[in-house]
Amino acid sequence: MSKKLTKRAEDYSKWYNELVVKADLAENSAVRGCMVIKPYGYAIWEKMQAELDRMFKETGHQNAYFPLFVPKSLFEAEEKNAEGFAKECAVVTHYRLQNDPDNPGKLRVDPEAKLEEELVVRPTSEAIIWNTYKGWIQSYRDLPLLINQWANVVRWEMRTRLFLRTAEFLWQEGHTAHATEAEAITEAELMNNVYSNFAENFMAIPVIKGLKTESERFAGAVETYCIEALMQDGKALQAGTSHFLGQNFAKAFDVKFTSKEGKQDYVWATSWGVSTRLMGALIMTHSDDHGLVLPPNLAPNQVVIVPIYKTDEQFDEVSEVANTIMSDLRARNISVKYDNRTTYRPGAKFAQHELQGVPLRIAIGPKDLENGTVELARRDTLTKEVVALDALTDVVEGLMTTIQDDLYKKAFDFRADHTTKVDTFEEFKDVLEKTGGFILAHWDGTNETEDKIKEITKATIRCIPEDSVEESGVCVFSGKPSNRRVLFAKAY
Amino acid sequence: MSKKLTKRAEDYSKWYNELVVKADLAENSAVRGCMVIKPYGYAIWEKMQAELDRMFKETGHQNAYFPLFVPKSLFEAEEKNAEGFAKECAVVTHYRLQNDPDNPGKLRVDPEAKLEEELVVRPTSEAIIWNTYKGWIQSYRDLPLLINQWANVVRWEMRTRLFLRTAEFLWQEGHTAHATEAEAITEAELMNNVYSNFAENFMAIPVIKGLKTESERFAGAVETYCIEALMQDGKALQAGTSHFLGQNFAKAFDVKFTSKEGKQDYVWATSWGVSTRLMGALIMTHSDDHGLVLPPNLAPNQVVIVPIYKTDEQFDEVSEVANTIMSDLRARNISVKYDNRTTYRPGAKFAQHELQGVPLRIAIGPKDLENGTVELARRDTLTKEVVALDALTDVVEGLMTTIQDDLYKKAFDFRADHTTKVDTFEEFKDVLEKTGGFILAHWDGTNETEDKIKEITKATIRCIPEDSVEESGVCVFSGKPSNRRVLFAKAY
Ligand SMILES: [Zn+2]
Ligand SMILES: [Zn+2]
Repeated sequence: MSKKLTKRAEDYSKWYNELVVKADLAENSAVRGCMVIKPYGYAIWEKMQAELDRMFKETGHQNAYFPLFVPKSLFEAEEKNAEGFAKECAVVTHYRLQNDPDNPGKLRVDPEAKLEEELVVRPTSEAIIWNTYKGWIQSYRDLPLLINQWANVVRWEMRTRLFLRTAEFLWQEGHTAHATEAEAITEAELMNNVYSNFAENFMAIPVIKGLKTESERFAGAVETYCIEALMQDGKALQAGTSHFLGQNFAKAFDVKFTSKEGKQDYVWATSWGVSTRLMGALIMTHSDDHGLVLPPNLAPNQVVIVPIYKTDEQFDEVSEVANTIMSDLRARNISVKYDNRTTYRPGAKFAQHELQGVPLRIAIGPKDLENGTVELARRDTLTKEVVALDALTDVVEGLMTTIQDDLYKKAFDFRADHTTKVDTFEEFKDVLEKTGGFILAHWDGTNETEDKIKEITKATIRCIPEDSVEESGVCVFSGKPSNRRVLFAKAY
Repeated sequence: MSKKLTKRAEDYSKWYNELVVKADLAENSAVRGCMVIKPYGYAIWEKMQAELDRMFKETGHQNAYFPLFVPKSLFEAEEKNAEGFAKECAVVTHYRLQNDPDNPGKLRVDPEAKLEEELVVRPTSEAIIWNTYKGWIQSYRDLPLLINQWANVVRWEMRTRLFLRTAEFLWQEGHTAHATEAEAITEAELMNNVYSNFAENFMAIPVIKGLKTESERFAGAVETYCIEALMQDGKALQAGTSHFLGQNFAKAFDVKFTSKEGKQDYVWATSWGVSTRLMGALIMTHSDDHGLVLPPNLAPNQVVIVPIYKTDEQFDEVSEVANTIMSDLRARNISVKYDNRTTYRPGAKFAQHELQGVPLRIAIGPKDLENGTVELARRDTLTKEVVALDALTDVVEGLMTTIQDDLYKKAFDFRADHTTKVDTFEEFKDVLEKTGGFILAHWDGTNETEDKIKEITKATIRCIPEDSVEESGVCVFSGKPSNRRVLFAKAY
C-alpha cells in the first residue's frame, strides 16, 4: 500500500479516510459500520481515557458498569428517549444457534431459543441505569450519586465513517442523580466545562461552549450543553455533550427520595458523554497533507530516535548515544522510542513517523557523533535544526510545551479566521459557500426558521454560545426581532 | 437492609451471594443473568486491570479494539470453536424498532429491518480477530503480532451467579500470531506465568499451573494452559487460561505469511484471558463471616480513618490530626480515606468498613489526642492495637506488606491442608465428601475414565500440574497404569 495521501485541497474527505487507515489508527471491519481500532489509534484513545478518567475522579465521580442489553420494556419507558433511538437499535431476539439441517457445517438461529422479551443493545444507558438507581436511592443521604461508565454502545447508522459515525463506538457516559434542580444544572455545566478544558488544554482543540436548541437536544433532555469545534474544511464537529435531564427519567422509572425534611420528591438527573469521535476531531484539527499531527499530550511516543549508519560499528556507537538520550528524556517523563528496526531503512522510518504524527524526531548519524550533535525535526512545522547533545534534553522538554501551545494557537487562529458575523441571509449563504466555518447570526428563536435555514443551506445551529452578548438585531431569515447571535455551521 | 451475613459454615453459597450485594460489589440487573458492577466492586476490578495491563505491556503487548458483533459466517468458520459456543450465543437479528400499532406507546421489532446475516454478540473474539489479522499479516516482518483487548463478552448461561458465571462479563483477551510453533507455545506459557504471578503476588491467591485435559480444553485450542485456585469451601476455581491454538484459526481464516526464506506458511496462534470471575476468586479466597477481606494491593482504600467525637470542637481537633496522618500516608503512596460523614455514627462506619474489607482502620478520639495515640485495627486478623502517633506511618507502611503476605500464607496453608494424595477410588470419594479440596490421583489418560469419575463424583480434572513429578502408579478408577498424578476437584 502506498503511503502517499490525497491532498486535503483535492478531496478532504478522501484525505481523512486515507489518513485514518494509513496512519494505522483504525479500519473498517467485516461487520457493517463497525470499526477495528488498531493499536496505534487505541494508544491515543487510552491517553484520552486516562486524562478524562482523572478529571472525572477529581470532580467526585466513580466508575461502575451496567449491562450491555436493555429489555425492550425498559427501553420504551422514557418516551422521548425511546423515540429518539428506536430507529437505530440493534435487537437481540434469540439466545442460541444450532446446526443448520439444510447446510452441513453451517449454523442457523435456533427458532426455539427465541427470547420472551427482546433485548436492545444499548445505544445509551439512561434506561437501564435509572431502572437500577431506583434500588439505590431512597433518601437524601444517597444523593448526589455521581457515576461514570466506560463502555461500548451501538447505534445502527446508515452512513458510517471511521471514528466520526460508526455503528459501534466506545465512549464514557456519566449519569448523576441530585436532590435539587439547581444542583443538577450545576453538574451538567461543570461536566461541559470539564470537556472544554480537556479539549483545549489536553487535545489543543479550541471549542465553543453553549446550549443546543430544542431541535438539536438529546432525546429526553431538558437542556443539552455542548462543546463545538471547527474542522479544517470549515465544518463543525460536536465534540461532547452534557445533558440536564430534569426529572424525566426519575418519573419514567419512579425514582423518588425522602428529603431531610421528610418530603418525597423525584430525583433530578444529568448525563454526559464523549466518544471515540474525538479521534476524528483530533485528526481534522491538527493534521496536514503529510499525515497525522499529534499534540505531545496525545502522542503514544512523543519522541522517536532514528539511527543512521552503514556499518555495525556505527550502529553500536549511535545506539549507545541513543540509549543515553532515552534515559535522559524518560527521567523527565517524556516518552521516547528508539526505532532500531533493521528491516527498514531510515527513509521509510522517517515517512512512517511523519505519517503517524510523532511530535519530534531525532536522527543520529556518524557525522553527528563526531560533532556531538543530533538532527531534531518538528512534525508540526516540518522544520529541522541541529542541536548540541548536551542541550538536547532541555530543548526537547521545552518543545513539548511549545508544540502543544503552537498547535492550539494555530487552531485558534484558524477558527478566528473562519468565524463570520453576518446580518443578511444573502451574506449567510455566501459565507457558507465561499469560506464555510462558523457563522454568528441573529435567529428568531423558532424551530420553523431553524428548519428552513437547514433545508436551504444544510447549516444547523451548533449552539447558543455561553459567552454570547445581548445585542438586539433581526433574524437573518425571518426579519423578526432577536436579542443574541447564535452559532451556525454545516456539521459532521 | 440488614448488614448481617449468613455464616459460611451455615450456607457458603448464601454467604457469597449476600456478601457480594451487601459489600456493594455487584447486584443482579433487570436483564436475565447480567450484573451491575457497583462502584466499590468496579474500583477493585480497576486495580486488577491496571496491574494486568502493566504486565501485558511490559511483555510487549499492545491494546486494540475489535467489533462486538461477529457475522454468523465468520463465527462458524472455525468449526470446533463454533460448536463450543453456538449453544450460548446472543444473536442480533434486527436493526430497528417501530411503534407497535397494537399497543400505543409501546415499541416492537420492525419486521422490515431484518438483517441479511445474523450477528452473534462475541462470546470470545478469535473469529473476528483472525478475520482481521488476515489483512495485517503478509510477511515475517509483521510477526509476532502481540495484541490484547479489554472488552465485554456474552455467553448465554442458564444458571448464573454474580461474578462467577454471568451472561455478560468483562475480560481481557490476548490474541497473538507467530511465525513458529515453538514461539507460540512459549507465548502461551509466558502468559500463563503472567497470570500466576498476578494471582499470587498481586491478589495473594496461590494457584496451580498446569495443562487442561482434552475434554476441558478451550474449543478450538490445541493445548489449554490454566491456573487453578482453591476456594474456602473446598471447590476449585479456574482463574485464568492461556491457549496454544496451533494453526487452527490461521487455516480457518487463511492467514499465511512469507518467511525470510520466501516460504509461505500458516501463522501460529495463541489466545489468553482472565475476567471479572477473578472477583469471585478474590472473595472466596480471603473473606470471612464478617465480610470482604481485601489484600492491600486490591483495596480501593487501604486505610480508613474514623473520627470519634461528641462536640464540634473535638471533631475539629480530631480532623486536624486525621489530615496530618492522611498526608503522611499519601506521601508513601498509601491510599487513605477520612470517613468524616456526619450522617452516620462510628459504629455504623466500623461495620461498613469491616464488611467492605478495608485492610486497616484508624480510630481517633479525644482520649487518643491526649495520649498522642490512635487505635489501629487490622481487618484480616480482626486485632486492634494502640499505636503512638509518631510511629504510625511506619507501622502502617509495614502492615501493608505484612497483611499482603499473611493473606497469601493463610491461603497457601489452607490449600496445603486441603490437598490430598489418594490411591484408591474409595479414598477419592471419601476425601471429596469429607474435606473436599484438591485431590492428586493417578489417571489412565482416557476421556472415558475422566467422564465416569465426573458422573459418579462431580469432580473433574482441573489440570495436569506443571510441576507434577513422574511417578508410576495405577489409575484410581480403572487400575490401568499411569505415570503421573493429576489434579481433581469439584469446581465452580
Ligand atoms: Zn480558509
Ligand atoms: Zn477444611
